[in-house]
Formats: sequence, structure tokens, C-alpha cells
Amino acid sequence: MLTCSKGRMDDKIKTFSKFGDTGRGGITRFSLSPEALAARDEFCRRCRALGMTIVTDDMANIYATIPGEPGKPAILMGSHADSVKQGGNYDGILGVLTALEAAETIVTEKIPHAHPVTVVIWTNEEGARFEPAMMSSGVITGKFDKAAMLASVAKDTGDITFGEALDASGYKGQEANRLNPAKALGLLELHIEQGPVLEAEGRDIGVVEGVCGMVNYEFTFLGQADHAGTTPMKYRKDALYAAVKTIQYLHDELDKLDPRLVYTTGKISCHPNIHTVIPDEVRFTLDVRHQDPAVMEQAVAIIKALPAEVAGCAASFTPAWTRKTVAFHTKLVGMVEQASEELGYSSLRMYSGPGHDAQFIADLVPAAMIFVPSVHGHSHCEKEYTPVEQCWQGANVLLHTVLQLDRAGAL
Amino acid sequence: MLTCSKGRMDDKIKTFSKFGDTGRGGITRFSLSPEALAARDEFCRRCRALGMTIVTDDMANIYATIPGEPGKPAILMGSHADSVKQGGNYDGILGVLTALEAAETIVTEKIPHAHPVTVVIWTNEEGARFEPAMMSSGVITGKFDKAAMLASVAKDTGDITFGEALDASGYKGQEANRLNPAKALGLLELHIEQGPVLEAEGRDIGVVEGVCGMVNYEFTFLGQADHAGTTPMKYRKDALYAAVKTIQYLHDELDKLDPRLVYTTGKISCHPNIHTVIPDEVRFTLDVRHQDPAVMEQAVAIIKALPAEVAGCAASFTPAWTRKTVAFHTKLVGMVEQASEELGYSSLRMYSGPGHDAQFIADLVPAAMIFVPSVHGHSHCEKEYTPVEQCWQGANVLLHTVLQLDRAGAL
Repeated sequence: MLTCSKGRMDDKIKTFSKFGDTGRGGITRFSLSPEALAARDEFCRRCRALGMTIVTDDMANIYATIPGEPGKPAILMGSHADSVKQGGNYDGILGVLTALEAAETIVTEKIPHAHPVTVVIWTNEEGARFEPAMMSSGVITGKFDKAAMLASVAKDTGDITFGEALDASGYKGQEANRLNPAKALGLLELHIEQGPVLEAEGRDIGVVEGVCGMVNYEFTFLGQADHAGTTPMKYRKDALYAAVKTIQYLHDELDKLDPRLVYTTGKISCHPNIHTVIPDEVRFTLDVRHQDPAVMEQAVAIIKALPAEVAGCAASFTPAWTRKTVAFHTKLVGMVEQASEELGYSSLRMYSGPGHDAQFIADLVPAAMIFVPSVHGHSHCEKEYTPVEQCWQGANVLLHTVLQLDRAGAL
Repeated sequence: MLTCSKGRMDDKIKTFSKFGDTGRGGITRFSLSPEALAARDEFCRRCRALGMTIVTDDMANIYATIPGEPGKPAILMGSHADSVKQGGNYDGILGVLTALEAAETIVTEKIPHAHPVTVVIWTNEEGARFEPAMMSSGVITGKFDKAAMLASVAKDTGDITFGEALDASGYKGQEANRLNPAKALGLLELHIEQGPVLEAEGRDIGVVEGVCGMVNYEFTFLGQADHAGTTPMKYRKDALYAAVKTIQYLHDELDKLDPRLVYTTGKISCHPNIHTVIPDEVRFTLDVRHQDPAVMEQAVAIIKALPAEVAGCAASFTPAWTRKTVAFHTKLVGMVEQASEELGYSSLRMYSGPGHDAQFIADLVPAAMIFVPSVHGHSHCEKEYTPVEQCWQGANVLLHTVLQLDRAGAL
């Protein structure tokens, strides 16, 4: 069976790891930064060398296309090229590089195809410097207000807006160049899993059925700040202890639900946070994800059943962020699974916990995702790693899914 | 029965509340700051007006003395005049002002007394700008190395050492002026309780038998940072959950010990403290206090019984600070109780949770403390408050304990 070039895949990963190289095995490549623009330049240079036509839209999303038969809708594939601070060499960019490798294979092997094949880079997926995440796929699918996005100020330095960075980038194009659903057959995004499941289960490919629904809450506990040495236990209103009892309650109750439910209390603050003072205000965050809205409803019911008073402290919570489950296109998901099978790779159907551009695009165009394993599940850190063998396998699944879709001609 | 002047007591509190006034009901009066020096100046002005002799020692501790019969040892009383940042108008300074009021009563009422009566201000009790706390009583009792104390750098600005502040203060005197145990009969320190017990129990006066022993520990939990959305619960090593389970364990086990035991988990840190990342490193502090060393040993045994692994995370702890129980002089404590009774005040024998200068002095000179109630137990904050009536009652107990000790002539 025809495959991509493992050597070229390796070269692409090594080359793009230089743009924003931290010198410690990872990259910092904020969207539209000089490092990100250098990566875009290299991407465009390579696309042009393959005879691809490049356009950008008003959010600087890049579309590089191998032509197909006149009038046929395009098959799209791609991801993002920006990273978080001190991130890894795979998150996002691997979806771009496997797409580029699949396109390069089609061109160099002269594989016949009826539909145009477009490799996409979505601008500012991470939201690491300009919030929010998935900004540009969000704008073109109507999730975010464009004017508000252009006004987003750099979180670190505060000296520039996203709009100003966009104007200065040289990559801002026409709104008319945005992804046109009427001219798109489907979209595929390959991404690293960012979790340990494929590795732990010994599978090569994740066949992504959708993106988990999510709720985020912030819990607040208000107690009484008193001196550690003078206040008998019976008089205390210890906000940290109230938080501790609530985190334990959440574990006890949420663990009774479906084992695929994941929940995280990742952030905590404590006031005044002095070792000799009883805490009077403690806050923590809760992030809950599951693919089944019914399970999410059960989780929310557990949250809402929290008493108004815990350990003598006023307990409250506010929802901070909600995302509904996104299901990818069933037939396209099936094609990913079939391509993987035909290539002799083991696969696992799974839902994505993190958000990806493909979940926004899925509203306009049939979409699906392909996961490749993350060693030890590391992501958003410099230790993020996927062996080139597995990157190459992912590129092969991507290539053959595109070719399958091309042959099918419709979904 | 002869008493101090409530009007003068009120004036003293109001006057000294101006030195470092934050404008929000409290003070910031770091040791040897311009505000603290202004308070010292006013104190010395008032002492001189009463005909008292003033000397200072090499740590700028002030000793203002009403003469007694030649050769008789002095009776000392006093506390400190510095505050924490945004502290209250009572912690420390009330012990100075009640002592000054008792001295003023002795002078103005021409109360006969055989022994010299000395009002003391100890320098830098709070350690709020120059660490450690109880610095100067610690130096003269051999607890702290003087050279190390002089080298202590301002915590906030880093631009000055304690030694430099001392040199510039105008209050640095001779080492020969330090408290001389051979010439001291006993020392009394009045202080606000800083806790809710006297108020809750409806008592006027705390007869302080000693200062609780204390242990401080820092606990550390090392887990694995992973993505909130991608890591199944069974693969997680959540350091915050390990800390939560440990805090609950400490509550469960320590609550089985004597109800007078107090323990506090006041400070917690969480890394990376991002709502979508499973925490990989969490630390919290534990402060435990009790007057009975046997109970403290039981508490330490509970701490040491913590397993090395909690919720899949490596758990460890290190002792950060230890203080043995200090028992005050039994006869002097009895005199405080008797004076309170004779004045018709209700009293409660109790141990101090916080540390005080008197606990260091107790090593050299018979010592005892008098507590007055703290409204709602507030202290180290601008809401710290004790009604003038109760301050005045404290001054009366102080005065009559001094007079009793004067009559007794020995302990």
C-alpha cells in the first residue's frame, strides 16, 4: 500500500522544531510572533515548491491547495502552527506537517484525485498570547465576534492587540477567501492525543468520534481569618478545610458516574495564605468532561447538590465555561477507521478531551480527527513527544482517508 | 480599691493609635520606622514628665524607671510598640500603655513602693520588616545571635539592615543597660488575647500560665502534571488530591486528641495551578500547638504516621519550626489571679498560643502575662479591638500585681 515518506516526515518535524526552539527540547511559538511567521514562511515556501496555490483569509488562516477537477469541492486537512509558552514540537504543527506530507506524497507520486486538496493552518489556536483559544476557526464559524477578537490585547506585554499583530504579519487576506462550506467536501485534523490512553492501550491510531462536552466551575469558600494559636477548633471557620471537604465530596460522588468521566481541580487560591492564620477565602476550579450529555447532567447535579455551608463556611460556585459535546461526521470517522485498518494499524475509537479547531469547523463542513500517541501522555510541555514512526503512520492514515473521501465524492 | 484612670487610658490608646495610622482603623508601625520612632518619642516624653529615668540597651530596648529603695531589684512590666502591616491599635502597644498607666498611677497617687518600677519597650517583636519575631528579647536572653540579627535585611524593600536602622534610630544604647536578672524581681506583660476565648466565655481577664509548645511542618506532594481533558482518572497522580486526603487525615486523627489542641493548615501552594492541568506539586503548612508536651508528642506521632504515598503521589514532610512549652512563674501567675479577684473581675487560667517577649524573658526573670479580651478574637488586622473599659481593667490588674509583688519582696 502506498505510504508517505518517513524520511521527509522526519525532516519536516526537525525543521519546524527550530522555529521558536527554546533550546530545551521544545518551542515557544506564540501566534503571529516572528517565530510563528518564520514557520509560516517555510510552510508556504514548501507548498509553492509543490505547485500549490496559496490564499489567506481576513484572520490570516492559510489555505494551500493542489488543484482538482474544475468545480469539485475541496478536501481539507490541517491544524495550527502556534504553541503555548515552552510547549512541544507536536501539538498543532504535526497536523500541519502530516497534511503537508500527505499533499507532497500526492504530488510527488502523482496520485490521481478528482477533488482539490487543501492544507490549512488555523491562526491562533492556543490563545497563549491573545485570548481566546481557537480564535480564528471560531471567527469564521461565527463563534466569536471578529471585532472583539481584533481588540484582544497581548496577555504578557499588553503592548499590542491581535488586530495590530494581524496587520503587521503580512498574512492577512480577504474575507472572501474564508473556508466556503459550499466548496468543501470534508475536513480532517490530525493531532497528538495529548493523553496516555493510546500508549497505555498499545494502539497506533485514535479514531476520534467527537470532542467531549465540558463544564468549568469556580468554587468559593468564605470563612473567618483568625490566629492559628488563639482560636479553639470549635470556633473556627476554616475556608481551606471547607475546600478540602468539598474536593473530597466531588471525588466521592463523581467517581460513582461513568469511568470515562474526567474531572480536575487544577487551580486553588488561599487567602491570606500565611501559615499562622486560618484561611478566610479559598477558591478552586473544577473542570469536568464527558462525551455523553446525560452523564454531564449527572455531574452538574452533583455540583449543584453542594450544601450552602461547609465546615462553617459559606460555600458557593459559579459556572465559568461550558462546551457542548461535538460529534464528528459518522461516515468520515468510519473512513478514518477503515484507512487505519487497511494500513494494518491498531486503532481505538475515542473522544477528545481538549478542544480543537476541527470541532468549530464541524458546524460548517463534515469533519473528523485522527490522533497519534503521546509518549507518557505529555503535552503543552517541552517533553511532548511522538516517535517519527507514529507520526508517519498518522500521515498515512490521513493520506488514505483523503483518498477514500476523494473516491467516495460525497458524505 | 485604688484603680488607674480610665480617661488617661483612653487618651493613651487614642494618642498612640496616630503613630502609623492607616486611616482605616489600624496602624502600620514597623519596628524602628519613622512611625515607631515617633511613638517611642511620645512614650519617653510622657515617662520623663513622670520623673522616670530612661536608658536603652544595645538592641534599643527602652527601660523607663520610677526609683525605689536603694539596692532593691526592679519590677518590670511592658511589651512592644511595633506592629505588623495593617495591624491593630492594641497588639503589643497595649502592654506598654497599661504599664505606663500603672506607673503614672503610682506616681500621681504617690503609692508607696519599695522596688523600682520599670516600664519596658522591647524592640521588634513582630519581625514584620526585619525577621525574626521577638528579635531583641531573643538577643538579650541568648536565643538569637546578635550579629545575625543586625544583618537581617528589610523584607519589603531590601535596602537596609536591622543594624543600620538601629544605628539611625537614636535609641541604641549600651549593652550594659540590658535587663539584669540580678537586679530584677519579676516581669509582667499585658497583652490582648488575640483569640475569642475570653469573649466567648464571658471573662474579663486571662491569667496566662504559659505559652503553648508548637510544631510547624511543611508537607509536599509530588504527582504528575497531565492534561485535564485527556487523562483518565485511573492514570492520574493528582498532587492536590493527595494534599486534600492528607488534610482530611490530619483533621480526623488530630481531632481525637485533647480538645485544647489547635492546628492550622494556613498556607498552600499548587503547581502549575492552571485549571486544565492536573497539579504535580502541592505544598501546605501545618502549625500545631498545645501546652502539654505529651499531647504534642501524640500529634507528632500522627504526622509521622503519614504514608509515603498518598493518592499515587510521593508524600513527605519536613519540620520547619519547633517551640517548647514555656511555663510562667507559678507564684507570679497566682498574684495575677489574686489581683483580678480582688478587683472583682472574672478570670480564666489559660495558655497563650502566640509567642510573646515574656516567654524569652521567663528564662532569666520570673515572668507572667495578663490577657484582656479581643472583640471577635480579631488580631493582626485593622479590626483588632478591645473596649477601653477592658483595657483599663487590665491596667488595674497589672497595677495591683505589681503592688502585691512589691509587698511580697520575693518570689
